[in-house]
Amino acid sequence: MRKSKLEPCQIIIFGGTGDLTHRKLIPAFYNLLEEDLLPKEFTIVATGRCIDNREEYLKSLYNSLQKFVSREIKEEVWNSLKGRIYYKCFDILEENGCKGLKELLDSLDNKYNIPNRRIFYLAVPPRFFGTIVTNLDRYKLLDFSGDSWSRVVIEKPFGYDLESACDLNKQITKVFPEENIYRIDHYLGKEMLQSMMVIRFANLLFEPLWNNKYIDNIQIISNEKVGVGDRGAYYEKSGALRDMVQNHMLQILSLTAMEPPADMTTESIRDEKIKVLKSLSKFDNVDEYVVRGQYEAGKVDKEEVIAYHDEKNVSSDSKTETYVALKTFVNNLRWSGVPFYIKTGKRLSTKLTEVIVEFKSDFHPAYQNNSTNLSPNLLVIKIQPEEGVYFQFNAKEPGSKEKIVPVKMDFCQNCQVGFNSPEAYERLMHSVIIGDQTLFTRWDEVEYSWDFVDQIADFWSENQKNLPKYPAGSNGPKEADDLLIEDGRKWWDV
Amino acid sequence: MRKSKLEPCQIIIFGGTGDLTHRKLIPAFYNLLEEDLLPKEFTIVATGRCIDNREEYLKSLYNSLQKFVSREIKEEVWNSLKGRIYYKCFDILEENGCKGLKELLDSLDNKYNIPNRRIFYLAVPPRFFGTIVTNLDRYKLLDFSGDSWSRVVIEKPFGYDLESACDLNKQITKVFPEENIYRIDHYLGKEMLQSMMVIRFANLLFEPLWNNKYIDNIQIISNEKVGVGDRGAYYEKSGALRDMVQNHMLQILSLTAMEPPADMTTESIRDEKIKVLKSLSKFDNVDEYVVRGQYEAGKVDKEEVIAYHDEKNVSSDSKTETYVALKTFVNNLRWSGVPFYIKTGKRLSTKLTEVIVEFKSDFHPAYQNNSTNLSPNLLVIKIQPEEGVYFQFNAKEPGSKEKIVPVKMDFCQNCQVGFNSPEAYERLMHSVIIGDQTLFTRWDEVEYSWDFVDQIADFWSENQKNLPKYPAGSNGPKEADDLLIEDGRKWWDV
Repeated sequence: MRKSKLEPCQIIIFGGTGDLTHRKLIPAFYNLLEEDLLPKEFTIVATGRCIDNREEYLKSLYNSLQKFVSREIKEEVWNSLKGRIYYKCFDILEENGCKGLKELLDSLDNKYNIPNRRIFYLAVPPRFFGTIVTNLDRYKLLDFSGDSWSRVVIEKPFGYDLESACDLNKQITKVFPEENIYRIDHYLGKEMLQSMMVIRFANLLFEPLWNNKYIDNIQIISNEKVGVGDRGAYYEKSGALRDMVQNHMLQILSLTAMEPPADMTTESIRDEKIKVLKSLSKFDNVDEYVVRGQYEAGKVDKEEVIAYHDEKNVSSDSKTETYVALKTFVNNLRWSGVPFYIKTGKRLSTKLTEVIVEFKSDFHPAYQNNSTNLSPNLLVIKIQPEEGVYFQFNAKEPGSKEKIVPVKMDFCQNCQVGFNSPEAYERLMHSVIIGDQTLFTRWDEVEYSWDFVDQIADFWSENQKNLPKYPAGSNGPKEADDLLIEDGRKWWDV
Repeated sequence: MRKSKLEPCQIIIFGGTGDLTHRKLIPAFYNLLEEDLLPKEFTIVATGRCIDNREEYLKSLYNSLQKFVSREIKEEVWNSLKGRIYYKCFDILEENGCKGLKELLDSLDNKYNIPNRRIFYLAVPPRFFGTIVTNLDRYKLLDFSGDSWSRVVIEKPFGYDLESACDLNKQITKVFPEENIYRIDHYLGKEMLQSMMVIRFANLLFEPLWNNKYIDNIQIISNEKVGVGDRGAYYEKSGALRDMVQNHMLQILSLTAMEPPADMTTESIRDEKIKVLKSLSKFDNVDEYVVRGQYEAGKVDKEEVIAYHDEKNVSSDSKTETYVALKTFVNNLRWSGVPFYIKTGKRLSTKLTEVIVEFKSDFHPAYQNNSTNLSPNLLVIKIQPEEGVYFQFNAKEPGSKEKIVPVKMDFCQNCQVGFNSPEAYERLMHSVIIGDQTLFTRWDEVEYSWDFVDQIADFWSENQKNLPKYPAGSNGPKEADDLLIEDGRKWWDV
């Protein structure tokens, strides 16, 4: 990460007592400070419901650091960080609250000689997004003039469907210019997604083969072992489609499929990602292309777990999907005819996120007549938990004359002892501070993603019957396997 | 290895007390027997200078087995093998000797009910090849009729130059048809060379890139740590050019560069290898394309070793090269403009044989402006001592935003604990027994290889001055590095 453009600024967190602040944001700031990647002058102003006192708050943050930072906490770093953390309880929805926050920020600007540069982080439920942003403007907490700037960071989900996303976007863009809006998709912070650019464009081995002449299909997979946990209320409204496909899965797809951008600037890359989203095929019949599922009780890692419909804050006859598998096409010159299979679900047997590129099995005819079927070449870009790349290719079995077996060649980026990838939030926070939007989604990306997802959501809301169940700890519903079997293919993650 | 076509036969070794028989041939037969890969009925008839008695001979073979077979010798296998080993001393150059051998073989045919199927293995100095073959015919030891067959196995070198090779070939083909002649190039027995076919033609990842559009250059390297040992007399006449380049290096080159054969039969593959040899560029000026060297005293693995000209049976003012590096081109549509660099030498710092494919550095322009120069993609086919494949490609350095570093992905075929590749001679002997010529060189391959090598040898014999010296244990003469530096390239093995 760069040290340039680290301009003094204040970071204001809405939802300062929440889970995200404790688990992700403060640990990220701690790490950035330790690595000397924060500006010389900065404050972190946490706001939210009223708590006893600042000391108690700092103590709770310290406890979280010890839980969520993988290295040992250095006292001098923490001391330096906590001196810059302020807490103020108030109700942003009320005039007094807003004015109170303005007074605090102005006084801190004075104290640290910061020319009104503010990052507003909305770590609150989406229903507050619009009002907060409107009030920031109304009570004059923002400044876009001269050396000053104001940025807003918005957690997912950005809307519930295209219509609500448009409404929200209107409210925000009325106040913030697009280049000051940071829509988070935390998968984009992962090392390997950024590495995708390097793998594709700083190598000669892959790009010449990266098209429908050589690639049979691409599988984008994100399996989780966890269930909904205590996010039942949110998840009931969202489901896997909105929670994962609309953002993460389509982001990964567009990075995988995009044309080489004119240059490596944020806007050029976003322009190419948009072209992919625009080229996604419309479904003539959703049921033929999309499979959903919901987990039943079962065993994950030998531990008994309950069914989705028994989770806290989940309706006992819930029709919410915890699993989606779908097939789509990118209808452009490069990808015409190549299916992109997406699969994501909770309570599956494995935890992994990866992109699997399956090459065509156009081998020399002499080997196609081989008694045993040859495996296709695979290039797998591993995103998590392992980060790296592996190839599967065919080699002669040692010692035999004619037997050909698939062999794997593995490069793991985070398997070296002692190596820690920077956490996604660390990288994201740093990007917001230096004003780099590459890892965030532009409005039109959000727009086209919802457009794609709404087709499916609308169909489902009218056709509730097809919701196959799958036991927790399995590989998902059989219907998802059939989706590929019908095409003469299979998922490569199992 | 296949068990089909294991027809009962006799194997007659000329040079039965020699080094090759002890180190390679008998261990190969032992392993084949243990793996049940010899015919039900067979004999091994060793001939050579007179020794005391059969028991002594068998004892010396047993000692060699214990030295040269990596696994433990099983007594029951050895007992079964030694019952089939016969020894007869006689002079093949004399009428009585030939008649005596015929009598022995005929009686063994009778004893084991073998219909005159004989493999004659010429493990003697090349000057005897012609006479032995002529006498085999004259004294009627051969039979090509009906169920019978006769095959001859000829160790390298096959001739000293094109002219002598033609003479020798005339003598042999007067007696043996081409399909019964097995010219050994023991590198072809190595696992990875056979694997080259599978890598190239049973995968989709490589063949589309296997041409001058994507490949910058190909390096074929065989480094040895050993000196000439007690082969000084032979080596003085041969040198690295005839000992290594004429056969091994050009064989590897032709397998690497050849077009896909019509099918995987011996003749189709040989046809394609020949086309490569035919397309090798003629040198307009040998000195510009070929570098030779001779080792001086030095240290290999911290041990002091003597200079080549001080070795046993080597002239103190020897002009024989122990090192060759050269640049050539395969002038066809696929390879036009791509240099093939060959390098081989004795007493170098490493022992390895490998093919290095360097891809072009045609990266996205955004990465070409990168402050650090990006490394090219490399595909390395490792032949020995490790057998396998590795890639070098570029990836983002973990944790940094812009730094790109080359990373390696390694597949080693013989690094698994407990895994033994079959020895080259084991595979070669098995091929002769089942009548498979794939691993042997056809006459026209020998012919074109000598044609290529003679250009260099002839030039050197007229221009003795340029023989750079290099210290033992080094990477060879500086002139070999310059050969690539002048082209803006470098050797990748160091």
